Amino acid sequence: MKDFDEYLKMVNDAIATMKLPDTPAGLYDPIKYTLDCGGKRLRPVLALAACQAMGKEPMTAIHQAIAIEVFHNFTLLHDDVMDKADIRRGRPTVHRKWNEETAILSGDAMLTTSSMLLAIKCGEHLASAFDLFNGTAMNVYEGQQFDMDFEKRSDVTVEEYMEMIRLKTSVLLGCACGMGALMADASFESQLTFFNYGVNLGLAFQLQDDYLDTYGDPKTFGKAIGGDILNDKKTWLLITALKEDTTGTVRGLIGNNISPEEKIVRVRGIYDGLNLPDRIHELIGAYIDSAISCLDQLEIMPEARAFFIDLALKSATRNK
Amino acid sequence: MKDFDEYLKMVNDAIATMKLPDTPAGLYDPIKYTLDCGGKRLRPVLALAACQAMGKEPMTAIHQAIAIEVFHNFTLLHDDVMDKADIRRGRPTVHRKWNEETAILSGDAMLTTSSMLLAIKCGEHLASAFDLFNGTAMNVYEGQQFDMDFEKRSDVTVEEYMEMIRLKTSVLLGCACGMGALMADASFESQLTFFNYGVNLGLAFQLQDDYLDTYGDPKTFGKAIGGDILNDKKTWLLITALKEDTTGTVRGLIGNNISPEEKIVRVRGIYDGLNLPDRIHELIGAYIDSAISCLDQLEIMPEARAFFIDLALKSATRNK
Repeated sequence: MKDFDEYLKMVNDAIATMKLPDTPAGLYDPIKYTLDCGGKRLRPVLALAACQAMGKEPMTAIHQAIAIEVFHNFTLLHDDVMDKADIRRGRPTVHRKWNEETAILSGDAMLTTSSMLLAIKCGEHLASAFDLFNGTAMNVYEGQQFDMDFEKRSDVTVEEYMEMIRLKTSVLLGCACGMGALMADASFESQLTFFNYGVNLGLAFQLQDDYLDTYGDPKTFGKAIGGDILNDKKTWLLITALKEDTTGTVRGLIGNNISPEEKIVRVRGIYDGLNLPDRIHELIGAYIDSAISCLDQLEIMPEARAFFIDLALKSATRNK
Repeated sequence: MKDFDEYLKMVNDAIATMKLPDTPAGLYDPIKYTLDCGGKRLRPVLALAACQAMGKEPMTAIHQAIAIEVFHNFTLLHDDVMDKADIRRGRPTVHRKWNEETAILSGDAMLTTSSMLLAIKCGEHLASAFDLFNGTAMNVYEGQQFDMDFEKRSDVTVEEYMEMIRLKTSVLLGCACGMGALMADASFESQLTFFNYGVNLGLAFQLQDDYLDTYGDPKTFGKAIGGDILNDKKTWLLITALKEDTTGTVRGLIGNNISPEEKIVRVRGIYDGLNLPDRIHELIGAYIDSAISCLDQLEIMPEARAFFIDLALKSATRNK
């Protein structure tokens, strides 16, 4: 096995050498801008590492790994249009830097590009790879739709929220792991177990994201803290507080016209009173345990096991 | 060979029995609405007919035919958002009936759905089918980008315009014909010849569309006449008039604040003076001849040849 940064270098090299046409510039420049954005590249690294863990050279899965990363960046691009977001990774979003038409069309072209990448050197796995990839993509759209639906609802349950983040975020991490295993000719059962590792990792990852948005250190987290509170975003924290705060204090703070600073302090105070920081970390720990128990079912070398355990623990304790 | 309406029935039956999930309704209802819209279904009919012309049962290509139709409807959905269009086929567009977020996300899901359909019972042709389909999709996006770019330019040439409509409209008709031939196990050369038939048909089809927008009968055409003139849309007619009208009268009418009725009458008067209605039909006739000469290169039965010649002639002389 290699370490994270070695896989990351393979991914970034492959993205840097991707050949996209120059014209029409209005179509291809925003794609290059989006792919040049940095980002954690967690999904393609998972694909390469899973491929190697199952016994093949990591580069066997490089095109499929990049396909998943391009797909992920396409979803961010279109989500930013839908959410009217101005900034992504410290730079203007595509629909702000260009315009909305450009963002829609370039996103479409990225989705088709991801499909083209998936097919490269896919060999006998082509049908299975498309099954996994397209099925995952539909789940991601369903998750995004539920996320938008939840904005208009005040009765979202924790179960509904967990299902939403499973669809919107976690299955794509599962897909990356399963794809790496598939490209390594692993059995369907092993692909599925690796998929489940990724899903559990993704759930832990997203819950930690929710935690950091409210409790993170702005210096390391890289963006302002409290955005979810100010937007009344129905995260695990808010949904749980709404359910358990029988005094109605939380509900009274939603849409309330107090100052941003005061709203963050008061909502966080209620979360603290309900012991939510500890409890969300218990939940994150449970998903990490589930992820690790998937690894126990796989016949992989100790160093592969160590790599994926380390990745899971880091996702659960990351501060950025 | 069957007649157009028999292929059409196969297509509509297959679309009607497509199973899409019920939830989230915000994602899937707009897709059902879009696919339930009627439309000419020209592309999937071409795929089934090409498959039969090359010696296989037309239903061999049904999933690939539907994939192309779903893709086509996805492009209309997203184009309507980009063009801020209110009406499509006599009904409110998706972004008017729902909202823009819904139109973007449902369109994305339609694009992935088309990819899923393409893979069904595709057998040994899977890699070739995806090559053809994804390459065509990229061309369609490039064409849409050029179309948007042309709105801001006043020096578009006829050659650039023909390349734009080749990309935006014609290659998808070529793809439909080529896909039908591919699914019938035709040689690569025959697939390419059928593809070229479709491209030439598509160019004739689009030029006739331009003609009808200015010279059609509103009763049969189904929408108001003169929309292109009022929007200063750079069609073959306007580009040719701008080039040849040395008095600058046409240029003076662009963006001019005269009444819509007067603008249509005056621009049409200039087109008439340059004999453009006859000349565009000469051009359309030349593309139809090219389409028919592709048929001459194919080893197909006389009744198949007759079907595709008839379709080409009808496209060139249609009034709706």
